[in-house]
Amino acid sequence: MTSDIDTLSAMFAKLPGLGARSGRRAVLHLLKHRDALMYPLAKMIEKTADSIKTCHLCGNLDTADPCSICTDAKRDQASLCIVEEVADLWAMERGGLYRGLYHILGGTLSAMDRRGPEELRLPALLTRIEKQSVQEVILATNATVDGQTTAFYISDMVKPLGVKVSRLAYGIPVGSELDYLDEGTLGAALKSRTSF
Amino acid sequence: MTSDIDTLSAMFAKLPGLGARSGRRAVLHLLKHRDALMYPLAKMIEKTADSIKTCHLCGNLDTADPCSICTDAKRDQASLCIVEEVADLWAMERGGLYRGLYHILGGTLSAMDRRGPEELRLPALLTRIEKQSVQEVILATNATVDGQTTAFYISDMVKPLGVKVSRLAYGIPVGSELDYLDEGTLGAALKSRTSF
Repeated sequence: MTSDIDTLSAMFAKLPGLGARSGRRAVLHLLKHRDALMYPLAKMIEKTADSIKTCHLCGNLDTADPCSICTDAKRDQASLCIVEEVADLWAMERGGLYRGLYHILGGTLSAMDRRGPEELRLPALLTRIEKQSVQEVILATNATVDGQTTAFYISDMVKPLGVKVSRLAYGIPVGSELDYLDEGTLGAALKSRTSF
Repeated sequence: MTSDIDTLSAMFAKLPGLGARSGRRAVLHLLKHRDALMYPLAKMIEKTADSIKTCHLCGNLDTADPCSICTDAKRDQASLCIVEEVADLWAMERGGLYRGLYHILGGTLSAMDRRGPEELRLPALLTRIEKQSVQEVILATNATVDGQTTAFYISDMVKPLGVKVSRLAYGIPVGSELDYLDEGTLGAALKSRTSF
């Protein structure tokens, strides 16, 4: 292996979900399809790095700032869905059911990793709630300890501002089998049962 | 998601070992570290695509043609190790025990995928054996049906040229537990048992 291939493999190996072996495989694959894949990939990475901005309002990544979601007049400006990361916003958008705006925290509070409120995009959240006459805040942080701690913290923070605060429902995932679910999920689904 | 991010995610998703979800994760990771990772990756992909050549002798990928292995005078010029792909050459080199030269086939014969001898680098192999006074050919194709078919085919082809032909030993992998091995491997290990 030459040092160029070594260096490039190591760069791929550092991407999330890849390791030393899959990094090498990706590079070999690219080298086999130089004109069809390798040069276009290099160009597209550079083009994307040049064109993508962070929306100063919600924290989304887009070619425009404010982003296409924040500037979409057809969306419900009074509803704000709070997510941890850009990937969570994308997951919500794939569902296509939510038609309000988003606010990306950029992570969660974490006692383990010593992340406090000052590392989240919270001042921007308060400004938006006050200036944009937000009426409902939907907490869509992950159902992890850190995600839920963060949801409680934000709930305590925004309730005094007079907005309605809700969170995503806990329950059994659609299509799942009870036998494979943990007790926590089953308990939550039982507690939140709805009449039939 | 903007179309740039979409396009780039789809390109990553096509790499071996990645899918739609890990492609998006990789792109998000890059966008978070634009100067430290994203621009350097684009540059390194382009640099590697520019600099890497295929060795016309053995089929290896290197910055030079013939490659650094083929031109290394300290290596045993009389020994030729036959592998399917460049990745297999790398695997052998990581072991560091083989000190001869290589010949990369670029695949295997395959009845399923209709790949015949004309798609492998076989004429180059015959030329090398004749011109470079090769004395031993070591067949290091994979222990799959296609790999072994290819090994038999090459063995039949090169034996009339008067070279010694061997293949890698079958047996139990070092560090493995018998309980987890398949019968084929155990049978091969028993058949090839060595005195102790």
